Amino acid sequence: MSNEYNLEEMGRKAKAAARGLSVIPTETKNTALRAMAEAIRKNKNEILEQNKLDLDDGKASGLTGALLDRLALNNARIEGMAVGLEEIASFRDPVGEVLGMWNGEAGRIGRVRVPLGVIGIIYEARPNVTADASGLCLKSGNAVILRGGKEAMRSNIVIASILSKAASEANMPLGAIQLLATQSREASVELMRLQALDVLIPRGGLNLKKSIMENARVPYIMTGMGNCHTFVDASADIDMAVNIVINAKCQRPGVCNAMETLLIHKDIAQRFIPVCMKALCERGVEIRGDETVRGLFPSAKVASEEDWETEFYDLILAVKVVDNLAEAMNHIHKYGTQHSEAIVTESYENAQAFLSGVDAAAVYVNASTRFTDGGVFGFGAEMGISTQKLHARGPMGVEQLTSTKFIIYGSGQVRG
Amino acid sequence: MSNEYNLEEMGRKAKAAARGLSVIPTETKNTALRAMAEAIRKNKNEILEQNKLDLDDGKASGLTGALLDRLALNNARIEGMAVGLEEIASFRDPVGEVLGMWNGEAGRIGRVRVPLGVIGIIYEARPNVTADASGLCLKSGNAVILRGGKEAMRSNIVIASILSKAASEANMPLGAIQLLATQSREASVELMRLQALDVLIPRGGLNLKKSIMENARVPYIMTGMGNCHTFVDASADIDMAVNIVINAKCQRPGVCNAMETLLIHKDIAQRFIPVCMKALCERGVEIRGDETVRGLFPSAKVASEEDWETEFYDLILAVKVVDNLAEAMNHIHKYGTQHSEAIVTESYENAQAFLSGVDAAAVYVNASTRFTDGGVFGFGAEMGISTQKLHARGPMGVEQLTSTKFIIYGSGQVRG
Repeated sequence: MSNEYNLEEMGRKAKAAARGLSVIPTETKNTALRAMAEAIRKNKNEILEQNKLDLDDGKASGLTGALLDRLALNNARIEGMAVGLEEIASFRDPVGEVLGMWNGEAGRIGRVRVPLGVIGIIYEARPNVTADASGLCLKSGNAVILRGGKEAMRSNIVIASILSKAASEANMPLGAIQLLATQSREASVELMRLQALDVLIPRGGLNLKKSIMENARVPYIMTGMGNCHTFVDASADIDMAVNIVINAKCQRPGVCNAMETLLIHKDIAQRFIPVCMKALCERGVEIRGDETVRGLFPSAKVASEEDWETEFYDLILAVKVVDNLAEAMNHIHKYGTQHSEAIVTESYENAQAFLSGVDAAAVYVNASTRFTDGGVFGFGAEMGISTQKLHARGPMGVEQLTSTKFIIYGSGQVRG
Repeated sequence: MSNEYNLEEMGRKAKAAARGLSVIPTETKNTALRAMAEAIRKNKNEILEQNKLDLDDGKASGLTGALLDRLALNNARIEGMAVGLEEIASFRDPVGEVLGMWNGEAGRIGRVRVPLGVIGIIYEARPNVTADASGLCLKSGNAVILRGGKEAMRSNIVIASILSKAASEANMPLGAIQLLATQSREASVELMRLQALDVLIPRGGLNLKKSIMENARVPYIMTGMGNCHTFVDASADIDMAVNIVINAKCQRPGVCNAMETLLIHKDIAQRFIPVCMKALCERGVEIRGDETVRGLFPSAKVASEEDWETEFYDLILAVKVVDNLAEAMNHIHKYGTQHSEAIVTESYENAQAFLSGVDAAAVYVNASTRFTDGGVFGFGAEMGISTQKLHARGPMGVEQLTSTKFIIYGSGQVRG
C-alpha cells in the first residue's frame, strides 16, 4: 500500500467512464455484473488471504470484537457478495425509464431517468460494501470512486481490483470502478471536494458526518444516523407493544433502525412498564428511566438528559413516561434524527396524527422500526438509508442513484 | 433598515412554522394565498413608494439600465405578483400525494409526499421573486427565509411584510415567511450555514455560485447557469434551423436558456452559414466564428477559446464548424453547463444519439432551447432551473419543493 494517489486523475477517468456508462445497454451491464460475481468466486482464496492480513493488523491494533466481526470475510460472506451482484443484475434497469411524456408548445416533452454520473462513497469497516456499492453504481450507469476504511484496506484493494478487471473485460469503460487506496487521511477530505463528483454518499458515524458537513464542497446524501423511538399509546394492545418493543431493541441492537428510546403514555404505564421492563431485562437490556419509570420498576437506572440524545447501538434503552401523544411527538421532534419512529396504538385518530405529524424517513403504526431496510421495502440491495430530505429519503436502491432529464421531440418549434 | 438580525432565532421560528405548515389542509393554504394576493393589491401604493426609493438609490449608485429595469415595479408588475399568487393557489397540492403503496412483511408500506421543511432562498434584483418564492413555498408546506439583493431591500421588506401579515391573519403559522432584512454581507454566509435549513436555493450568477460552493454547509440546489448550444446537423432543414437559431439567440438574449454557441456540421456549412449569419446580423447579433465560419462569412469576428466558455447573455454568438455529431457532442460535453442543448436534424439516428448522449437538464430535437421553463413544461410558476443532478433537474415547480416519507400501517409485525 502506498500513500501516493492522484484523485484529480481518478476524477477525470471516472467522468469519462460515466459518459460511456450512461449509454450502455442494460444487458451489457447485467453481463458484466454476472462476470463480476464469477470473478469474486474464482478469486476467493486471494480475498481471504488479504482479509486475514487486515484481521491480523486489526487484532494487533486492538480493534473491538464487533469491529473485527464486521471486517471478517469467510466463504459464506464471499458467496454473499457474489450472490448480491447477481441479484443486482436481475433488478430492473432504472436508466431510460420515462416518467411521463406530454404535449406542449415545445413539442412532445418527456422526462427520462438518467444516471447521476460519478458517485463517491466513503464507508467503514465492512469490505462487502465494496462489492455492493460497485454493483449498484454500475447497474444505475454511474462511475464510482470508493473510499473504504483503513482497517479493511487490503481486502478492499483486492476486491475492487477483481471487480474492476472483470468489469472492463466485460466491456465496461475503464475507470467505472476505482478505489482510493491510500492510508492518507487528507485523501478523504480531498474526495469531499472533488468537483468530478455528482454526489458523495458517506456511510459512517457521527465523526464522518461532522467532517462531511465541514469539508464537503460537492452535493452529498447523509445516511444512517438513527435515534429511533417507539411510543406506546394509552390504547395499545399490551402484548403487541411488548413484542414490538423487544424486537425493535433486541433483534439487532447495533444497527441504525433499532430503537433507542421508549415513550409510554401515563395511562398505560402501570400495566405496561412492569411486564415490558421485565421482558427486556431478561434479554439483557439495561433500562434507564425517568422518575415514573423507576417508581414502577425500581431496578432501572436514572436516565440523564444525554440519554435522550444518544444512539446506544447496544442493549441499553432510555424510557420515559409522557402525558399524551403531543408530548411524545414533541420529544421525538426534539431528540429524533428523522430516521424511523413508531407508535403502538388502537386509536385511529392517534395513528393518523402520528403518521402525518412525525417528520422521519419512515413512520410506523403497530410495527417494529427494524423494518426500515431496502430489502424489506422491496428495493433489493440498498446503498444506505438517507436521513436527509433532499433527493432521497429512507432506504436508497438503484432508483435513488439516478437523476432525470427532459427530452423534447420538436418539429421546428420556436418560442413566441 | 438596520444591520441587526438574529438568524438563529429566525431559523427556530421557521422550524416551528414548518412543523405547523406540514399538516395544514390544502384549502386553508389556498385561502391564505388568495388573501396574500389581495393584500398585495391593497397595498400597491406603499410598494410603489418603497420601490421608488430603491430605484432612486440605484440610479444614484450607477446601476445599469438593465438592472434598473429588473428592479422596477409598476402597476402591471404588482398585479402580476398578485395573479401569480392566485395561480399558485389553483395548483394541485403536492403534499400528501401517495406515490405508491404495497404490501410487505412490515405491513402496508406507502410513500407519501411531504414538505422539505425550511427553505432558504438567495436572489438578486427582481423584487417579484419575494412574492413568487413565498407563494411556492407556502403551497408546498414549507417555511421560507428570503434573502433578496441589497438593491431591492426596501421593496422586499414591504412586500415580505405584507405577505407575512396576510398569511398569519389567514391562519398560517408565524414565521412561515421571513425576510433577512439586513445590509450585512456576512448575513448571506451565515444563511448558507444555518442548520435550520433543509435546503438552500441560490438564484444568481457566477459569484453567488462560487460563494455557495465555498461557504454552504447545508444542502443546496444550484440554479440557472446556462451555456447553451444548438447543433445544426448535415441533414437539417435549413429554414427550420435558421428559425430555431434566431429564436434561441434573439428572442430574449439575457436569460439562461438562450443559445450562446452555434455548432454547424461541415457538410451544411456552405449552404447554411451565409444565410443564417446574415439573418442574425440583421437582428444585431455579433458573430464570433472559427476560421471556416470566417471564410464563409468574412465580417465575423475571431472566436477565442474564452468565447466557447462564455455565457454572453447578450446579442453575441460564438459559431464553430465541426466534422460530425461526435465532435459537436464533445464540444458540448467540454464547454456546456448541462442546462439546455439542441440539435436540428432530419436524421432519426442522430436525433436519438443526441437525446441519449448529451447530459443536460433539457435536450431538444428540432426546437429552440428557449422553451426550458416551468410554465412551458406545465409546472406553473417555477422556483428556478436546477442545473445539478441531485433532487431536482431543470425547471423546479412546487413538486420539487417536496420530499417523501415512508408510512407503514402494521398490525403487530416484528422482524424475524
